[in-house]
Amino acid sequence: MGVTSDRVEYVCRYGGNGTTTSGVNVSIAAEVTMEIHSVCLPPKESTFQKLKHRLSEIFFPDDPLYRFKDQTWCKKLVLGLQFLFPILQWGSHYDLNLFKSDVVSGLTIASLAIPQGISYAQLANLPPIIGLYSSFVPPLMYSLQGSSRHVAVGPVSIASLVMGTMLSEKVSPVQHPTLYLKLAFTATFFAGLFQASLGFLRLGLVIDFLSKATLVGFMAGAAIIVSLQQLKGLLGIVHFTTKMQLIPVLTSVFHHTKEWSWETIVMGFSFLLLLLTTRHISMKKPKLFWISAAAPLTSVILSTLLVFLIKSKVHGISIIGHLQKGLNPTSTNMLYFNGQYLALAIKTGIVTGILSLTEGIAVGRTFASLKNYQVDGNKEMMAIGLMNMASSCTSCYVTTGSFSRSAVNYNAGAQTAVSNIVLAGTVLVTLLFLMPLFYYTPNVILVAIIITAVIGLIDYKAAYKLWKVDKLDFLACICSFFGVLFISVPLGLGIAVGVSVVKILLHVTRPNTLVLGNIPATQIYQSLNRYKEASRVPSFLILAIESPIYFANSTYLQERLLRWVQEEEERIKANHESTLKCIIIDMTSVTAIDTSGIDMVCELKKMLEKRSLVLVLVNPVGSVMEKMHRSNFLGTNSLFLTVGEAVADISASWKPQP
Amino acid sequence: MGVTSDRVEYVCRYGGNGTTTSGVNVSIAAEVTMEIHSVCLPPKESTFQKLKHRLSEIFFPDDPLYRFKDQTWCKKLVLGLQFLFPILQWGSHYDLNLFKSDVVSGLTIASLAIPQGISYAQLANLPPIIGLYSSFVPPLMYSLQGSSRHVAVGPVSIASLVMGTMLSEKVSPVQHPTLYLKLAFTATFFAGLFQASLGFLRLGLVIDFLSKATLVGFMAGAAIIVSLQQLKGLLGIVHFTTKMQLIPVLTSVFHHTKEWSWETIVMGFSFLLLLLTTRHISMKKPKLFWISAAAPLTSVILSTLLVFLIKSKVHGISIIGHLQKGLNPTSTNMLYFNGQYLALAIKTGIVTGILSLTEGIAVGRTFASLKNYQVDGNKEMMAIGLMNMASSCTSCYVTTGSFSRSAVNYNAGAQTAVSNIVLAGTVLVTLLFLMPLFYYTPNVILVAIIITAVIGLIDYKAAYKLWKVDKLDFLACICSFFGVLFISVPLGLGIAVGVSVVKILLHVTRPNTLVLGNIPATQIYQSLNRYKEASRVPSFLILAIESPIYFANSTYLQERLLRWVQEEEERIKANHESTLKCIIIDMTSVTAIDTSGIDMVCELKKMLEKRSLVLVLVNPVGSVMEKMHRSNFLGTNSLFLTVGEAVADISASWKPQP
Repeated sequence: MGVTSDRVEYVCRYGGNGTTTSGVNVSIAAEVTMEIHSVCLPPKESTFQKLKHRLSEIFFPDDPLYRFKDQTWCKKLVLGLQFLFPILQWGSHYDLNLFKSDVVSGLTIASLAIPQGISYAQLANLPPIIGLYSSFVPPLMYSLQGSSRHVAVGPVSIASLVMGTMLSEKVSPVQHPTLYLKLAFTATFFAGLFQASLGFLRLGLVIDFLSKATLVGFMAGAAIIVSLQQLKGLLGIVHFTTKMQLIPVLTSVFHHTKEWSWETIVMGFSFLLLLLTTRHISMKKPKLFWISAAAPLTSVILSTLLVFLIKSKVHGISIIGHLQKGLNPTSTNMLYFNGQYLALAIKTGIVTGILSLTEGIAVGRTFASLKNYQVDGNKEMMAIGLMNMASSCTSCYVTTGSFSRSAVNYNAGAQTAVSNIVLAGTVLVTLLFLMPLFYYTPNVILVAIIITAVIGLIDYKAAYKLWKVDKLDFLACICSFFGVLFISVPLGLGIAVGVSVVKILLHVTRPNTLVLGNIPATQIYQSLNRYKEASRVPSFLILAIESPIYFANSTYLQERLLRWVQEEEERIKANHESTLKCIIIDMTSVTAIDTSGIDMVCELKKMLEKRSLVLVLVNPVGSVMEKMHRSNFLGTNSLFLTVGEAVADISASWKPQP
Repeated sequence: MGVTSDRVEYVCRYGGNGTTTSGVNVSIAAEVTMEIHSVCLPPKESTFQKLKHRLSEIFFPDDPLYRFKDQTWCKKLVLGLQFLFPILQWGSHYDLNLFKSDVVSGLTIASLAIPQGISYAQLANLPPIIGLYSSFVPPLMYSLQGSSRHVAVGPVSIASLVMGTMLSEKVSPVQHPTLYLKLAFTATFFAGLFQASLGFLRLGLVIDFLSKATLVGFMAGAAIIVSLQQLKGLLGIVHFTTKMQLIPVLTSVFHHTKEWSWETIVMGFSFLLLLLTTRHISMKKPKLFWISAAAPLTSVILSTLLVFLIKSKVHGISIIGHLQKGLNPTSTNMLYFNGQYLALAIKTGIVTGILSLTEGIAVGRTFASLKNYQVDGNKEMMAIGLMNMASSCTSCYVTTGSFSRSAVNYNAGAQTAVSNIVLAGTVLVTLLFLMPLFYYTPNVILVAIIITAVIGLIDYKAAYKLWKVDKLDFLACICSFFGVLFISVPLGLGIAVGVSVVKILLHVTRPNTLVLGNIPATQIYQSLNRYKEASRVPSFLILAIESPIYFANSTYLQERLLRWVQEEEERIKANHESTLKCIIIDMTSVTAIDTSGIDMVCELKKMLEKRSLVLVLVNPVGSVMEKMHRSNFLGTNSLFLTVGEAVADISASWKPQP
């Protein structure tokens, strides 16, 4: 063993064969002249260097300061401003052609955003006007700070729904409308604060724990609950539960059959059919995206006209009524920072914050990868967070990048965040001048818009693919689906995250172990079970562990490895083959080890020695090697770089003996 | 690609070079004639078979039914009985020589068990007699069922301490002694039920989550708290806190200086010194184990005599007083199955159950590995669990295999569980005839015995080794230490388990990625950073991922891999090397993948294709291969069995092009 200044190399030899350089002729594997290579320790690093490296990988995996390297101070300032306000970066290259595209896409998404805004506000049990306010300030804020060029910002169904449910379970929006509004703004503020903090503290990894499988189940469950709850509006029921679970909702529907209003039902289902048909057409032919994009506004105009024309004859249809003209009023005085509902507001803020963040980041990344540019996750979190904090002071509730509107924006040819400014401008005109036009808009049309939007969240194809590819992912999906449907939104999400984490732990607790064999005439050793051409090497048992060795699996691994040895010995006995002499463990896939793991390997070595078996380790990765070295385990052990070299060297060392 | 009945092989080729058999001459790596091998899918298994295999690895890793295979029914019955009652297995070979050894060791541990039993009962705030009862029935039960030959059963310090703390925080043992006793028996019952259920349901993996690092910290914290609490007895203080945290205990000691009794202090510290000295001697010279084994009983006898002689002159020393003669009374009527404290009893039962189980199993495994026999963890859990359930009906509290007594038992030459029967017999004689002798035993001697026992739990060498080898293990250790010291026992344990789990998750969330290079004249590819002799292969970037690819790391890995590509392109540009054409990812250490992971790889492939780069995967493990196959990802992709073959084949396919 040679110790040099910055690295230690382990060269191990058996018996009297002391050559460490070359020239061991191998008869078992390929007939190749073989040099035995030593196993190196990774370059030495101090604890501080290691911690720094580790922390930078945890918090700065994307190396955000990369482009600031080797720049003048002046240039650094410009880059810093461009980093904070991406508009400064593309603003200088902006031209008329880009502007034309942005105006077209901006107007298209506005036609979708206005009816959706009103509907989603209703979903959150908020006054319709809040939905419009929330389609004005947030897009402006995002266009300054956001790094995506295609995201269209505004209220989204999932966050609206969750906020509506969580708040209305504690505070009735009908009996205490002001308190409810205050709590909604406060929750928005905390959602923004939470999002911005995650971004600022570079804790983007938190949202990674909401896996796609979990979200598929969660969104399907939420969509079903929302659709059922919309039966209130679709059937014209007046008295309805505020609860979210499946059973109270269905009970409410069928206990109030007397309140059903046929006029509402006819109008609702007709427009629902229209909207679903246009959606279906646009999904089949993505070029016709404008059909489904224009459908909501068209339905609102048609239904409003209809109600205006028949208003003297029909009375059962409830309408939006008077909406106040004017821009967003400030709402700083509405924020609620002490009192018994503060905890509720914070909890709602965190749950809606994390959900809207997940949607916003996913939307940004999807369209960025389609156009081959990168979106900085942590930066985007700060942009969305600051946007929500500002929104909460201007009478808006939680907003984020919406999947449906961003897709329309992308298809309509949006080039930059200017399309969001055009959207905000259109909403501004609406707020200032067009509010009276919504007086006769029937509520049932908003219901139809909501149902059409949420039905798109049920992605049964994705669920089927999960089932096909990964049963445990499917289990996480099903858990979040039923959790949301029968328990509650935060608990359903919690259960699903728990299942995902348990899945990871289970993989670590009960890892795979394989018996390897040599593929004839090569130095390749592969699983005997998988590669039929691979064959056992006489006197050797070659095992591979497919997992880190941790406290959670060291006992299992010890038992399992001993069982392999025992089974091999029995097999050899039954077949009268040459006795087992050496156990080789291929450590290539053992990507980490802890102190329990090292103890396990030591113990295993001792137990095998008592049975006159030699234990040899092959190719431990850097960190494993380092820890074994530090625990002084290696002094008495044998290491090789490849299984082939281990087999060649050890069997060569046996030759002189009779 | 050839699909056969039970396995699919993937052979991939580039460009026009269609040969799939052999004969590609490699110039980059070793000049060896190279055959390209195909990557196989694992043998097909139905979902049910897979589930069965998975469940059997989770619950039956030790294949407990192994020896029942290919046996007659009659033999199976005998084996089954022997499995349940190991005494039937070794009973038939039992002879006089074994019996002699067992009698000597049984008497030795009895001399330790009697004073320790009385002391530990005091630690659990129970009457001293309960400690003796608990050294009679449990050893008898264990000798019938336990599979270890060296474990000595009885009350242990940690479980006594935890039970004493958790119960006395809610119910005062002084004001409500009967209720307290009821709760202790009930907690023992639930501890046994929990242990037996874990064993029966084969959930032994639960105790694996208490890592050694956690236990080192936990035991040290608990030992410090106990030692400080014993200052009550050592200083003769009468009024003392029932709390467990550091601060109230220290406050109690120094707020009652007037109650300090100098007689108690002198006697206590003298015997403490004696006990610590004998302990030190036995630790230095393991052959003199009997010195520390005999010290407690000697101290008890000496101090009792001393008090008896000076009783008329000195009054400050509190004594045990009257102890009732006779065997364990039944306590089934004392079990408490409804009422407000049931939850407390269950919680205490689970915490003490899991702690005593951890100690018992660890003790059993340690001595089994010294004598090279195996202890079945799940079987042992059932034995300990049933023992505790039976104990709770015979006036005993929680017992398990004790580390200190088992070590003495082992050193005194115990051969079978008969030493436990001898121990029980000696305790029986004590209970029936010798109880009056303890009348003048001073309480302070019990305090000295407790302190000597718990000081041994502070394993600062182990903590230093944790620091040296694995900083994160040390963090878990420190968390449980301070958690126990300043918060509470269950919370401290919970925090430590949390830290351990987060450590596993962190490894998965931010895995290592490496750039590999070729070691000249070989087919070995290793980390460029670690092996200085390894060199880059022109036009290739060879990366290795050291972790499963999961939802929790897929975003990170995508960003990180793209950063490697970008850095490599910049390096090539700076050094004017040949352009990058192909990215090879070595998947050997990617031991699992989920649907998010597969999506990530697909996406990465698309993104690299947009940059005119080819992505090739090397040696995916069985389960990863299967999932990629099922998600139809492989159709458009390229796979190789080794990095060497990939490099050879791809560069060969480039040659015809100019």
